[in-house]
Amino acid sequence: MIIALKHDAPGEEIRAFTAFLEKQGVRVHLSEGASQTVLGLVGDTSGIDEEGLMARRLVEKVIRVQEPYKRANRMFHPDDTRIDIGAAGGETRHIGAGYLGIIAGPCSVETREQIAGVAKAVKEAGAGFLRGGAFKPRTSPYSFQGLGCGGLDLLLEAKKETGLPVVTELMAIHQLELFDGVDIIQVGARNMQNFTLLKELGRCKKPVLLKRGLASTITELLMAAEYIMAGGNSRIILCERGIRTFDSYTRNTLDLSAVPALKRHTHLPVIVDPSHATGIAWMVPAMAKAAVAAGADGLIVEVHNNPEAALCDGEQSITPASFAALMGALKKYAEFEGKKLS
Amino acid sequence: MIIALKHDAPGEEIRAFTAFLEKQGVRVHLSEGASQTVLGLVGDTSGIDEEGLMARRLVEKVIRVQEPYKRANRMFHPDDTRIDIGAAGGETRHIGAGYLGIIAGPCSVETREQIAGVAKAVKEAGAGFLRGGAFKPRTSPYSFQGLGCGGLDLLLEAKKETGLPVVTELMAIHQLELFDGVDIIQVGARNMQNFTLLKELGRCKKPVLLKRGLASTITELLMAAEYIMAGGNSRIILCERGIRTFDSYTRNTLDLSAVPALKRHTHLPVIVDPSHATGIAWMVPAMAKAAVAAGADGLIVEVHNNPEAALCDGEQSITPASFAALMGALKKYAEFEGKKLS
Amino acid sequence: MIIALKHDAPGEEIRAFTAFLEKQGVRVHLSEGASQTVLGLVGDTSGIDEEGLMARRLVEKVIRVQEPYKRANRMFHPDDTRIDIGAAGGETRHIGAGYLGIIAGPCSVETREQIAGVAKAVKEAGAGFLRGGAFKPRTSPYSFQGLGCGGLDLLLEAKKETGLPVVTELMAIHQLELFDGVDIIQVGARNMQNFTLLKELGRCKKPVLLKRGLASTITELLMAAEYIMAGGNSRIILCERGIRTFDSYTRNTLDLSAVPALKRHTHLPVIVDPSHATGIAWMVPAMAKAAVAAGADGLIVEVHNNPEAALCDGEQSITPASFAALMGALKKYAEFEGKKLS
Amino acid sequence: MIIALKHDAPGEEIRAFTAFLEKQGVRVHLSEGASQTVLGLVGDTSGIDEEGLMARRLVEKVIRVQEPYKRANRMFHPDDTRIDIGAAGGETRHIGAGYLGIIAGPCSVETREQIAGVAKAVKEAGAGFLRGGAFKPRTSPYSFQGLGCGGLDLLLEAKKETGLPVVTELMAIHQLELFDGVDIIQVGARNMQNFTLLKELGRCKKPVLLKRGLASTITELLMAAEYIMAGGNSRIILCERGIRTFDSYTRNTLDLSAVPALKRHTHLPVIVDPSHATGIAWMVPAMAKAAVAAGADGLIVEVHNNPEAALCDGEQSITPASFAALMGALKKYAEFEGKKLS
Repeated sequence: MIIALKHDAPGEEIRAFTAFLEKQGVRVHLSEGASQTVLGLVGDTSGIDEEGLMARRLVEKVIRVQEPYKRANRMFHPDDTRIDIGAAGGETRHIGAGYLGIIAGPCSVETREQIAGVAKAVKEAGAGFLRGGAFKPRTSPYSFQGLGCGGLDLLLEAKKETGLPVVTELMAIHQLELFDGVDIIQVGARNMQNFTLLKELGRCKKPVLLKRGLASTITELLMAAEYIMAGGNSRIILCERGIRTFDSYTRNTLDLSAVPALKRHTHLPVIVDPSHATGIAWMVPAMAKAAVAAGADGLIVEVHNNPEAALCDGEQSITPASFAALMGALKKYAEFEGKKLS
Repeated sequence: MIIALKHDAPGEEIRAFTAFLEKQGVRVHLSEGASQTVLGLVGDTSGIDEEGLMARRLVEKVIRVQEPYKRANRMFHPDDTRIDIGAAGGETRHIGAGYLGIIAGPCSVETREQIAGVAKAVKEAGAGFLRGGAFKPRTSPYSFQGLGCGGLDLLLEAKKETGLPVVTELMAIHQLELFDGVDIIQVGARNMQNFTLLKELGRCKKPVLLKRGLASTITELLMAAEYIMAGGNSRIILCERGIRTFDSYTRNTLDLSAVPALKRHTHLPVIVDPSHATGIAWMVPAMAKAAVAAGADGLIVEVHNNPEAALCDGEQSITPASFAALMGALKKYAEFEGKKLS
Repeated sequence: MIIALKHDAPGEEIRAFTAFLEKQGVRVHLSEGASQTVLGLVGDTSGIDEEGLMARRLVEKVIRVQEPYKRANRMFHPDDTRIDIGAAGGETRHIGAGYLGIIAGPCSVETREQIAGVAKAVKEAGAGFLRGGAFKPRTSPYSFQGLGCGGLDLLLEAKKETGLPVVTELMAIHQLELFDGVDIIQVGARNMQNFTLLKELGRCKKPVLLKRGLASTITELLMAAEYIMAGGNSRIILCERGIRTFDSYTRNTLDLSAVPALKRHTHLPVIVDPSHATGIAWMVPAMAKAAVAAGADGLIVEVHNNPEAALCDGEQSITPASFAALMGALKKYAEFEGKKLS
Repeated sequence: MIIALKHDAPGEEIRAFTAFLEKQGVRVHLSEGASQTVLGLVGDTSGIDEEGLMARRLVEKVIRVQEPYKRANRMFHPDDTRIDIGAAGGETRHIGAGYLGIIAGPCSVETREQIAGVAKAVKEAGAGFLRGGAFKPRTSPYSFQGLGCGGLDLLLEAKKETGLPVVTELMAIHQLELFDGVDIIQVGARNMQNFTLLKELGRCKKPVLLKRGLASTITELLMAAEYIMAGGNSRIILCERGIRTFDSYTRNTLDLSAVPALKRHTHLPVIVDPSHATGIAWMVPAMAKAAVAAGADGLIVEVHNNPEAALCDGEQSITPASFAALMGALKKYAEFEGKKLS
């Protein structure tokens, strides 16, 4: 961290400020130039609050040279992290480090037939994981809120039948006791900065699929991962799912440049959700391919056997037939990018 | 709600779709024009999911004419809601319906001296309520997270000494048992769509100060209020605290047009937080006055006796002296706008 | 400007880089810390391209300490600039430096009766300047594009009758020869970075009302003013007119914090356009008052004698009666803020 | 277009409003429902101003069913438009309709050696077109503004030597007389809504590369194309080059979902500029591949023989060696997507 001081900062204040910084566990190097005095901080600056420093009368600018995250930082963990998930028959599936994990399924679990049917279809098409929501975050208290525990049971039945590991969203920590059979816990975009929840998930042993908030920066997403990792859980899959911008053609704006950006700064796998990002079924195949071309380690795609009758998000779900066609293209793309489908 | 159908929609599908809509409790009026068939929905459409309708092959466009919120809607509750809060000595303070509530205090409770000193100072300057954080949502797991229960105790001591009702943030529902002495529960911007938390607060008897999310629309804020109201708690104070935009001069962009917009659509009081919105202490007085001019029912302002040494958000805190000067200006503004300071 | 170098930058490259910088007319101070080498640049850095420096292999971060604008910078011109405009009868009107200039009139000049009627009405209500568009920038080539020269003639007739100085938009430099009688030339938001136009206006002797672009930062607006000032024309009035954000309740999001921000960094007057910012007539009075409370030096407000029949932007125009009522409130606000209406 | 009227609109006003609409050349169908009266407009509504209608007291909502553009609309021109450009030796190059046009070269023309060297290198690597700026739009009046006419001459020399057709930016219409040898005229993002310029380009015979504005919607980009097409010039190439959002990791946010969105609504070719969008050289290859995967008809990529010494935008330019490697990958992607490199 580099702190440029105001050119008229009195020597006494500089000394007091330096002492204050050193008490926070860093060494401070003072460089006095003709027009500018600059402090260079050496050591672990991740606990130092940039904005707090800006409140000081003698501070002109603060520049963070090191990222404020440690456990998620590729600098301290250069190799890609691979998330391994046990599947049926002793098989193991992977996401990251050369494995392209494909997660597919409906937005919400609705009926036994629906989830079983979709699960079978996406497995046949080559998906590696099944998604399906039981607890649904909905903007309106009057909208369908998911089947809850009953939905979870149906999802786990579908897991049993197909052998596909399952991903589903956790909305509050007390639901964790119901998640025994769940393979990957999803944290939704609206909960990305629910810090109480993140801390609790740090104590949990399951992989976490952490979705980027609608208006979260790359650094904030990595800091949210850091909250979980600081608690001891390093099995995190990051997910770009669109950000909110002025443009309302798509529900959100899929920020695919987040993929190479994240992969440069973190060792964690990065997947993309083209369904929620666009909110438009006919756009999903194009954006799914683009995500893989941009370097994603996986995809999470909404597939519904009857999108028109879906209880939620039907307009963004593709049919099993479209999904099968997309998988054909993705095989080729994975090959171009030197990745194995999983 | 009006649904424009595609011009080639077959009659049979239209009939099936109409039946599907009527099962959801609304009446459907069909208008067949030369080039466009339009369905008009009459009745309570707040439970009908616009986006789900868009998934239908025969649907061209959906227009919501009525807002999707009911309890928060001024249409069904034309008079302004006034929130009454008991203060020391049997006095009652008010926010809304002609009362301008001024909440002031430090971002975080840090020490007994700090909170007691600030409380005394803001009371003398004319504030009606004391704010102070005990549980702090912080982007980094390595930043100061607030004093927790100890902070709450110090805040309640300051309440006792000054008689000022207190406002503090709740981050998770299990903290509610500690909030007995708290007068107004704050829900932070990052939790505005923590639907589990909102539902629980609907069962609670205390007023809730609900902050607008960083990237939340006016309607989403009102739907979040509706979640709480649907549970039975109607004592909600809405708070505009800046939105995230491309401009990074200020920490967020204070959206003052949200004040008249909200007041047109809801009867709930609307206050403004100029401190978090701008993140810059010298901007707070100008934006505080502008908020009152725009029609706000109150303000929540960060005041710290020593902003330079604040453990969080010092750069946006004003001193007690600046606050006292601001109160002088606000009295004139309030009087001109026909409001009583509270 | 401070340049933090990568910690492994070879001495030879540092020397070459320093020489490159010095050739651009600045002195370079090298501070070698234990972990970080920092270059401090002294002198006029406004011509040095930050982004270009970032392309260098040895550069870690670049921080600009001085703003990149000079003529518009309050640092080099601490006193407020006052724009003086001659009106009928030898009178002079002012904007800035304690004068609150009120510009009012229709979006477009439509007929002699319309512009003459509105001009008379806004003058009686206390406006100091008349606005009216002759050349209109419209999103669609099929929309009404303004009356052109004929519109300009009608505007100048209304000026003659009322004595109000007039403001109208210039869309291309070849129109300048028609602007002889125009008192203030408006540059629209879409042309804020039409650098060819800005350079030409630098050679012109008339005051320029420069509107902030829809997605322009504070610094970009000041750099656009700097383009005009670099050509020799310093009579510039800056105008905040709303920025584009995710929120579509209002046409744009009025960024009132831009007012104190601009006034801190520049000596130029800053006015606000509540009509284009919100696009909603009933919001205009609240936002106009808020603008004055935030410290604006003036307002530009759309007023139409028959908003329902306006050929453009009727939904954001207020009637002469509403404008007269607003002026009553503004007189009080101007008094609070120690400003004279002009 | 569908207009929902307020439920209490008086019959007389409805009749007057209907007459007003019919005078604008459309037929109006009235549907009276129990709770809502709806007007359906039949005919060419592209000249009708939605926002003007919203100003009417009796109007509740307006919904445009048809897009407001005609010539650019795929509905009236279902087949992809192919832009043909003559190259040296009687050869013709193509963009669109199955042809993937690759445009490469430096941001600015700097010296004869530079542009000639880059031109030769990109041609060898397989680029079909050469780019290079002579007139540069720069945020600061003190930054390098391009070599002007001299730069244009050097660009045309490089064209002669390599046979590559050239693309360069026009900043003002008076420059057109210098553009005789230029093959494609670029309109920069900041000029996308310089309507005077667009109208003039409508009268010109050369293809236009129209870049999307920083904060322009899909519809606004198509309306800008419509301005040129309305003047008679239909040879337009649209270019997605990043939009401005809250995220500042990349210079802009590349909105790749604009590619399928545009291709659905227009027959014009759509290309992508990964260099300006990201502003970061190491991101360019990933985003270039993603653009092709998303369905783009071409790319415009900045290549510089010595990015560190570039006079502008060096940080986003890739070297000829990186460009050659990228072309290798793009060949496979193009083949898989069924497109011919051009």
